[in-house]
Amino acid sequence: MRLSAAFAVVAALAASTTLAAPAPKNKYVKPNRLLARPLPAGFDAHVAVNQYATTDFKSSSVHETPTVKAPRKNVWAGLTNAEAASVVAFLHNQTALNLTAAADAGSWDNIITTLDLVPPNKTDTVAYLSGNASEPARYAYATIMFNAFEEPYLEDYLVGPLPINEKSTASPYSFHTTAGSSRIRNFDADEDLTSEFFAAEAAKCDDIIEDLLGANSSQYDLWGIDPVWHEGDRVVSWVGFWGRPTSVFDGQTLLPQGLYLRFDITGRDPSKWKFLGWLHNYKLYETSADFRDAWEKGLVEKTTRNAGMNETWIGTDRRGPELPYDNRPPPIQIAPGGQRFAVDEEENYVAWMDFTFYWSFRRDTGIRLWNIKYKGNKIIHELGLNEALAHYAGNDPVQSGTTYLDTYYGFGPYAFELISGFDCPSHALYLNTTFHSNEISTTHRRSLCIFEQDAGFPMQRHTNGQYASATRNTQLVIRSVSTVGNYDYTFSVVYMLDGSISTEVMASGYIQSAYYAANGDYGYKIHDGLSGSMHDHVLNFKLDADILGTSNTVGFHTIEPKTVKYDWSPVERNTMHLVRSELQNEDNATLHWAENARSMVLIYNKDEKNKYGEERAWRLMPHIGGAGMYSTIQNSTNAGPALNFAKAPLFVTKHKDSEFNSAHPNSAYSPFTPIIDFDKYLDGEDLVQEDLVLWFNLGMHHVPHTGDLGNTQHSTAHAGMIFSPHNYDDFAPSQQSSQMVRINYNASTGDAFVEDVLTFGGKSASGMFNLTAAQPNYYAYEGDSNMRKFPYSPEDPYDDTAAIV
Amino acid sequence: MRLSAAFAVVAALAASTTLAAPAPKNKYVKPNRLLARPLPAGFDAHVAVNQYATTDFKSSSVHETPTVKAPRKNVWAGLTNAEAASVVAFLHNQTALNLTAAADAGSWDNIITTLDLVPPNKTDTVAYLSGNASEPARYAYATIMFNAFEEPYLEDYLVGPLPINEKSTASPYSFHTTAGSSRIRNFDADEDLTSEFFAAEAAKCDDIIEDLLGANSSQYDLWGIDPVWHEGDRVVSWVGFWGRPTSVFDGQTLLPQGLYLRFDITGRDPSKWKFLGWLHNYKLYETSADFRDAWEKGLVEKTTRNAGMNETWIGTDRRGPELPYDNRPPPIQIAPGGQRFAVDEEENYVAWMDFTFYWSFRRDTGIRLWNIKYKGNKIIHELGLNEALAHYAGNDPVQSGTTYLDTYYGFGPYAFELISGFDCPSHALYLNTTFHSNEISTTHRRSLCIFEQDAGFPMQRHTNGQYASATRNTQLVIRSVSTVGNYDYTFSVVYMLDGSISTEVMASGYIQSAYYAANGDYGYKIHDGLSGSMHDHVLNFKLDADILGTSNTVGFHTIEPKTVKYDWSPVERNTMHLVRSELQNEDNATLHWAENARSMVLIYNKDEKNKYGEERAWRLMPHIGGAGMYSTIQNSTNAGPALNFAKAPLFVTKHKDSEFNSAHPNSAYSPFTPIIDFDKYLDGEDLVQEDLVLWFNLGMHHVPHTGDLGNTQHSTAHAGMIFSPHNYDDFAPSQQSSQMVRINYNASTGDAFVEDVLTFGGKSASGMFNLTAAQPNYYAYEGDSNMRKFPYSPEDPYDDTAAIV
Repeated sequence: MRLSAAFAVVAALAASTTLAAPAPKNKYVKPNRLLARPLPAGFDAHVAVNQYATTDFKSSSVHETPTVKAPRKNVWAGLTNAEAASVVAFLHNQTALNLTAAADAGSWDNIITTLDLVPPNKTDTVAYLSGNASEPARYAYATIMFNAFEEPYLEDYLVGPLPINEKSTASPYSFHTTAGSSRIRNFDADEDLTSEFFAAEAAKCDDIIEDLLGANSSQYDLWGIDPVWHEGDRVVSWVGFWGRPTSVFDGQTLLPQGLYLRFDITGRDPSKWKFLGWLHNYKLYETSADFRDAWEKGLVEKTTRNAGMNETWIGTDRRGPELPYDNRPPPIQIAPGGQRFAVDEEENYVAWMDFTFYWSFRRDTGIRLWNIKYKGNKIIHELGLNEALAHYAGNDPVQSGTTYLDTYYGFGPYAFELISGFDCPSHALYLNTTFHSNEISTTHRRSLCIFEQDAGFPMQRHTNGQYASATRNTQLVIRSVSTVGNYDYTFSVVYMLDGSISTEVMASGYIQSAYYAANGDYGYKIHDGLSGSMHDHVLNFKLDADILGTSNTVGFHTIEPKTVKYDWSPVERNTMHLVRSELQNEDNATLHWAENARSMVLIYNKDEKNKYGEERAWRLMPHIGGAGMYSTIQNSTNAGPALNFAKAPLFVTKHKDSEFNSAHPNSAYSPFTPIIDFDKYLDGEDLVQEDLVLWFNLGMHHVPHTGDLGNTQHSTAHAGMIFSPHNYDDFAPSQQSSQMVRINYNASTGDAFVEDVLTFGGKSASGMFNLTAAQPNYYAYEGDSNMRKFPYSPEDPYDDTAAIV
Repeated sequence: MRLSAAFAVVAALAASTTLAAPAPKNKYVKPNRLLARPLPAGFDAHVAVNQYATTDFKSSSVHETPTVKAPRKNVWAGLTNAEAASVVAFLHNQTALNLTAAADAGSWDNIITTLDLVPPNKTDTVAYLSGNASEPARYAYATIMFNAFEEPYLEDYLVGPLPINEKSTASPYSFHTTAGSSRIRNFDADEDLTSEFFAAEAAKCDDIIEDLLGANSSQYDLWGIDPVWHEGDRVVSWVGFWGRPTSVFDGQTLLPQGLYLRFDITGRDPSKWKFLGWLHNYKLYETSADFRDAWEKGLVEKTTRNAGMNETWIGTDRRGPELPYDNRPPPIQIAPGGQRFAVDEEENYVAWMDFTFYWSFRRDTGIRLWNIKYKGNKIIHELGLNEALAHYAGNDPVQSGTTYLDTYYGFGPYAFELISGFDCPSHALYLNTTFHSNEISTTHRRSLCIFEQDAGFPMQRHTNGQYASATRNTQLVIRSVSTVGNYDYTFSVVYMLDGSISTEVMASGYIQSAYYAANGDYGYKIHDGLSGSMHDHVLNFKLDADILGTSNTVGFHTIEPKTVKYDWSPVERNTMHLVRSELQNEDNATLHWAENARSMVLIYNKDEKNKYGEERAWRLMPHIGGAGMYSTIQNSTNAGPALNFAKAPLFVTKHKDSEFNSAHPNSAYSPFTPIIDFDKYLDGEDLVQEDLVLWFNLGMHHVPHTGDLGNTQHSTAHAGMIFSPHNYDDFAPSQQSSQMVRINYNASTGDAFVEDVLTFGGKSASGMFNLTAAQPNYYAYEGDSNMRKFPYSPEDPYDDTAAIV
């Protein structure tokens, strides 16, 4: 869940100081901490630890960290704090917008919520990167919440060019939409007032609540469906009671109480809102009087309480019998050779082996990779998350009505500091990420990591009676983790020596659960009063591949059984063959992974063949866990067309600058009239030798079981899609690696057994490694505590004296 | 391919001293090396290296290696050398068998080929392990090749009980068959003679061959289809020319020459064998005269030679531009805490965390795990490989006619020494494996490894504004690698802290390729004269699960979309629900993984529910790469019913002691009359609350591309199936681990930031680690050189003085 203050009982909020769940979008208010805290002595936030931790006794040298200078500016880099501040100031100067500083705003004030860079058009960036054009102009967009209306709405505004100058303008921004406008109604603009209304209505039955739940309504939090429902012209919300953890563990999503209230919250006049009834144990009471009457007659069955009083079970601390020898130090990865990749931290540019790429970080979707080159040729223009669906189901209205479209909350704001030694090895390079929201620029320290790892098995090996050969399987990983409320999403892109690039996501953290009563068709009973609420995760990624140019074609190479009469055989033979076909048009570009994985999905430029006449292709293939999953529900009553990106595992479209994303974060406000309807991208365009975009889904059908308590386990909550060269090079590019061994031995030569050990110039780690120095310093952890700027005030926009040191 | 001496030109064999491909079954003749070579000083074959490599400065203590004593004897342990010798001697004493010592035998002599333990019946082992019965009697079986007949055949003989005593007998062994007998015809018993015949026939056109291929037939090896074909009552073979590598690299399977010969080799009288013609460039010449005539008229087109002269391209040594910083030592895993698992090396028994298991090693299928217990309860009786299909296709008869059933060659004989630091980390525990073949007991040193590894990501993590928690994801791996001729299969079983067990296979080594001419429907052209020959790999595994007893049921929990009218909603809602069903009968037990992975496959005892009323189940799930693949060809002209185990991704049967394996290694001799036809296991038995066996397939549709040169890459040639607890425990068992951290911090407390770092007793590595000491000693590598016993002679069966030190 994303605990929305909108649905929380106001009285409760004040009391629940231990309730530490991140607040949702537009309520992103952090504790006051205005100045950057000095770092612990000797601690450098973005330098790997254990590259200093070894000395080679032979050379006594410390490996120097490689450096690289990005060949061009990172034109996708997020807004600088200065840019963000200037955009906010500029918008406040547009008097027609009637903006109020976010920090001062009330519920009828127009405010700026989020700011981000408008990604430059691919057309322009390609020209710039190839040296054929100057740097694309920078533009920001700001989401403005227009609350000063009876029919409040949100709309994105384009601001630029940047830096702000006399030619800069601010205007409604519609380019990246299918609706023709980014304007969308907010049907739930008065969260504080609805919360009060919900709480007041609930309190009228405090005696019943105390009887059923052991405490009155003030001891619970009330929140519910997301997004709100429309029934005819009415706006309806359901909220439920949730227990309030008293320890540090924010496992409130494990404490549903099975008691729900229904409201009509149409319009902005609280006097016209209506309470529509209680639901308990799948029995509906249309008025509080009905509920009370039934209760007094003993007709309201008391079901098992889902108590948070004894919270051991919602915690994640060690419990149960200790495991043998488990307290001893376990195996770890170390990087005794120091950092073997180069990063231009000014431009967020990385070079590793034959790969180079840029990265950017967006408020909506987090980490995004750009201009991935392999052996000097671009293969991917853009790779990143677009949207993440979590669609629940249940016999109660709150679970049934929950469909998260997580960019609404944003992956950027929840990319907290990584846990060194767990999320990434201590030798990783840790970097900061920044987002701009509520007129505050926030930087999370050490929230992105880049590191090399050994895969745990070789890339290649072969042995016979005369030799043994093997090549090390070292990979480069770039990773960030976003804890969007209850769930922790770990995003990784893994580069491999054979050219493969794997896009992976893992889920951990707390499930959002349901009350168990009569909920057996929607999940397992996993605790006394608890049902693990079934839900689908579908995470949509954009893979804008450019294989040897932008004229690309998707080919299917399918393995099919066949009966053939060969000239050389007197009888027919039952065998198989390879059938090659090509994707012609967007009308057929909603794709499903073939049964028995019998069809390979390739992308190539038909005019670029290797010397043997085969297309120099790349292949897209599900390779870990839930890769290729898509939404079970195709026509969701909750999300409507806003989930069209999730309806199949893979789509191919012709690239258009206007089709930047498969979803818009604000579609969640009104999903049946989404700002971006992904279906509209599939509009009959020809796909042969065009600039193509692959939109693939990773996911998981998650029916939580007892093993999801306290948190979901990564071993099965893991999905990955691999993109690999296929007839692209003349031989396996891992053969370029020096990190291989060939042992020449001869089974026939008696005692003089191993004749040669060839190591091809690749050095192995030697000398003494200082493990103590490689230990992470957890006392330097800052987590979601972050460096931020002063809130905007017209007089003092973004005080730069509080910059990160 | 498996380079069969049977098909090699005899003259060529003598010359090709560098040709080091392993010979197939029954030709397993290694260079003479009769005595165990002393180990290098200070080298202990079965002790991990780098557990000695660290000192903790605080304690100066070296971690003691844990020990464990198996509670019972390992009743699945392979035959000891003494047992094997006694069985051979006993069989030689059965005069009716008319055996000749393998070392002295000619082609008309009866010989013993392989020996192995008859796995004791589950019924008996369960009784023994639970203390309710004495140890099951040990029996061996010997495969005897009855060559002294016009219609030669093979048959298994049961010998026992062991040790040989007056009650011991030898009799045909049919219990583990569906044919009612293990007797099977050998249609190709005169390999030396057929090879001579092939060579002589080829030599008649040496001038043409020299013209087409640049050298005469003596410079090539001739081998072909596997198994041989039956056309009516005739036995037909096709062979092709293969180039002969002159360097150490045994990449002969990359050197097909596109010239093929067809023979009738029916019967054992060479005078009745017939040469049936030449095939070149998809043109058939029924006689050599026809071929010569066409050649003389210039009608035999000279196609590109597939030369092995310049062998750089078939080698795997480093080539191409060096990669930046690649010569620096890359990241590695180390085990500074020493070994954290315990092994009883007498009984091949392992204890790690809450898991214990026995392992055995079989000639046919290699490593096999038994009696896997989790938290004291058995969950798996048996887990191991049954058979590995590699089914090729092509427009030439040799590729079209190649269908390997690899247990014919055996995974045991090809499990050579592992490459420390590549196949397994240098800190792994390396153990030996033994097999008995051709009256020789052979031990491969350090051919099995057991080690812990860090997964590279945590098992669990969660962060919020007050704390960050994570649990380390340490895994136990048991691994062996078998290089069956050209291909290297890496088999791993991975145990995880959440209870999951992953069964994995990876493929590397040399592909078997095809000549490129007109072969475009069967693969890619990948070199000048080469087509990467398409093929399906299907590896069948037996998972005999016993979840809380042997009364088990397979359940399907399926996520289905549904439209529901809830009482609390005025409108119907499009949502989803969980549908539970159970597998009733073997008639429906040929299973396919559901589209969109929407159905979970569980196994449980219906009478064993957790305290919330859910079955305490385990879930089987494809989770890496080609998991769940099955054979494209369902009715193979090559393999007939011998590949029935590969026809679907998953089968469930009722356990029977007689149904030990899904295939028999000797079925490859006559696959249309297989000794075991897996279909016959699916014979209508009830499956509800029965002792169930899951037979699952891992595989890969492999259409090799240029990236398979020199060797196939593990990054995509990797498949894994995970078996995970599902509502089995009350909470995630990884919570028992001490290797977790909770960092308590508070975003609102200003400078006093991290309040506590909780580590739950789990120690981290500290002190100095000696990397030099952890380096593998490749000069101690022995590979396929092995400790073996003297060949059997009736006077001196198995000289035990040559035992392994």
